[in-house]
Amino acid sequence: MEIEKIARRVCQNFKPYIAGKSIESLKKELGLRLIIKLASNENPLGISHKVIKAIRVNLPKVFFYPDSNACELKKNLSDKYVLPVDNIFLGAGSDEIIELIARVFFTHEDEIIISKHSFTRYAMAIQLMEAKAVVIPMRNDLTYDLRAIAKTCNKHTKAIFITNPNNPTGTYNTKHEFLEFLENLTLNKFSVKPLVILDEAYFEYASLIKDYPNSINFLERNPNLIILRTFSKIYGLAGLRVAYGFASKIITNYIEKIRPPFNVNSLAQVAASAAIMDEMQIIKSQKYVEKEKKYLYEEFSKLKIKYVKSVANFILFSSLPLKGNELFKKLLREGVIIRAMDEYELPFYVRVTIGLHKENKLFIKKLRKIICIK
Amino acid sequence: MEIEKIARRVCQNFKPYIAGKSIESLKKELGLRLIIKLASNENPLGISHKVIKAIRVNLPKVFFYPDSNACELKKNLSDKYVLPVDNIFLGAGSDEIIELIARVFFTHEDEIIISKHSFTRYAMAIQLMEAKAVVIPMRNDLTYDLRAIAKTCNKHTKAIFITNPNNPTGTYNTKHEFLEFLENLTLNKFSVKPLVILDEAYFEYASLIKDYPNSINFLERNPNLIILRTFSKIYGLAGLRVAYGFASKIITNYIEKIRPPFNVNSLAQVAASAAIMDEMQIIKSQKYVEKEKKYLYEEFSKLKIKYVKSVANFILFSSLPLKGNELFKKLLREGVIIRAMDEYELPFYVRVTIGLHKENKLFIKKLRKIICIK
Repeated sequence: MEIEKIARRVCQNFKPYIAGKSIESLKKELGLRLIIKLASNENPLGISHKVIKAIRVNLPKVFFYPDSNACELKKNLSDKYVLPVDNIFLGAGSDEIIELIARVFFTHEDEIIISKHSFTRYAMAIQLMEAKAVVIPMRNDLTYDLRAIAKTCNKHTKAIFITNPNNPTGTYNTKHEFLEFLENLTLNKFSVKPLVILDEAYFEYASLIKDYPNSINFLERNPNLIILRTFSKIYGLAGLRVAYGFASKIITNYIEKIRPPFNVNSLAQVAASAAIMDEMQIIKSQKYVEKEKKYLYEEFSKLKIKYVKSVANFILFSSLPLKGNELFKKLLREGVIIRAMDEYELPFYVRVTIGLHKENKLFIKKLRKIICIK
Repeated sequence: MEIEKIARRVCQNFKPYIAGKSIESLKKELGLRLIIKLASNENPLGISHKVIKAIRVNLPKVFFYPDSNACELKKNLSDKYVLPVDNIFLGAGSDEIIELIARVFFTHEDEIIISKHSFTRYAMAIQLMEAKAVVIPMRNDLTYDLRAIAKTCNKHTKAIFITNPNNPTGTYNTKHEFLEFLENLTLNKFSVKPLVILDEAYFEYASLIKDYPNSINFLERNPNLIILRTFSKIYGLAGLRVAYGFASKIITNYIEKIRPPFNVNSLAQVAASAAIMDEMQIIKSQKYVEKEKKYLYEEFSKLKIKYVKSVANFILFSSLPLKGNELFKKLLREGVIIRAMDEYELPFYVRVTIGLHKENKLFIKKLRKIICIK
């Protein structure tokens, strides 16, 4: 059978997301005993005993389907962020939420604005809905060019994706820039402003910065705003798949309508609820990352490596004179996984996640070794 | 902002799946202390200690993203079913797999055949892709009319959904019927046979029946066949969201291409792997259900209640002279949740999941009370 003929055309041409290999498979493949992974911006402090306890207590009930409405978790988010439950939605990671938004709103007649050097999953969601992705370059300092984006909007612009702070650059746009941007957006052919999908996966790290926006405050005046947050980063629940977001009641209602009824698994629901309560773990993680970031900055300077200042828990740095992918491979052979940036169109950069101190030290040691050999 | 204008038309008219409320919310709502849930066809024996242990051991690593390729779980499935890994795919429940298949293959030009009185999520996935659902009546004995389906196929037929055994009827189609059906399918305008998506969520229960098909044997001669199985039913992992399926390499590859990269969470992966190994738990569950099914049949007979003989872990029975929804509500007030069948177009039926013996006894006691009052 020639399945090629019956698959949707966009699927025939679709290039899948290539996730990093697991530590276990790499150990086997490379014959290494110790591998450290500083590649996916997880929180190496992991989850607290409170979260572990919440999961353990709920294990015997795992044969039941999850609570489809995730009442408890939504209530906890509602309390924490002082927003009605009707403005809160959940997904199996931001990945799923991005796809749900695309499936509610995007058609082949729409243009969606994204930025160069930002999360590759936006373009994939756009492509699967046969909409057109319009890619805007970043400014020289690798921040979103919000003015250029606002100017690019036309009658076909259905939505704009913005990551703040941005992955993989670690840069951010200020509250002032955002307010101006939201104000400047022009109406499209539907006589509405384009949807602004603001992905704040690294919100908790950036929120320490004074002029980083508290975007929830923008919701009331901007019914076109959708804010995405996640439990995969600072909350340490990447393995469990749970993310959340805020939007107007009507947008939330649409996302709720088409989502799979049991999209957030039971253990993710109880773990996320416990994690929200555990503010000490968040503060501890924020401090840890700040301290280790300083350490890495200093070591980069000693090695004369150019890096981009980051407000998140990862650092983008120059791989020159090597190609990013070459440096990635050399470090991999030394047992350190970082991330090459070809898919982000940054071929002479790599991104390292800020790990535990001993991991960061080992990473620097191996990096120094590679640079000195070279 | 008038979001109505910018949402896709199919989403505007989309009726969401209404999942049952959680036991906790119902306890509050109804002021009841004890509620038993026999509504979602879960396995009340739950998970074994081996599975609990596998989850516990992996808790400290939950801050890492899941293995995107789920290598370990796929290998275990490959060993168990003696099929290459290239023919196996995974999803966050059959729900996700059904949507992925729809998103790979269905367009607004396609007709997809489903049966009356079968799982409602097929029609939803079809609707979201703007394809046309063609609904074929069941035979009088509430089994799939495979001959009528084969006859209905035309040049626009892209796919056919079949549930075997069927939910909510508990009926099945035989190996012989299936072989004839697969043979009789005619080519569509793409010069291929329509995809046959065979949902075997209750496979392990039905596999005790002699003439129930071992569908994996059909794969080699039918590259249009997609088999869906799940860990949510007999394996007791409904809360964790993990399902799997078998298909030709090329179909598997398409599903893999567009799926979210971390769709199966880490704990689901290790739990499913442990559950596969634990054959004793499956045998125990099969025996338990058989015994309790006999008990319920006998009690139904004593109460002169008409039921449909089931090869799965649930029973469809007549609510007459009450409407199904009325009987559902009356039982709910007594603390027993079963499922009304309006959405399955069976308004004078209800479906009960076979629970623990004490639950089944309580259910019968409450049912008798309602029938005698009436």
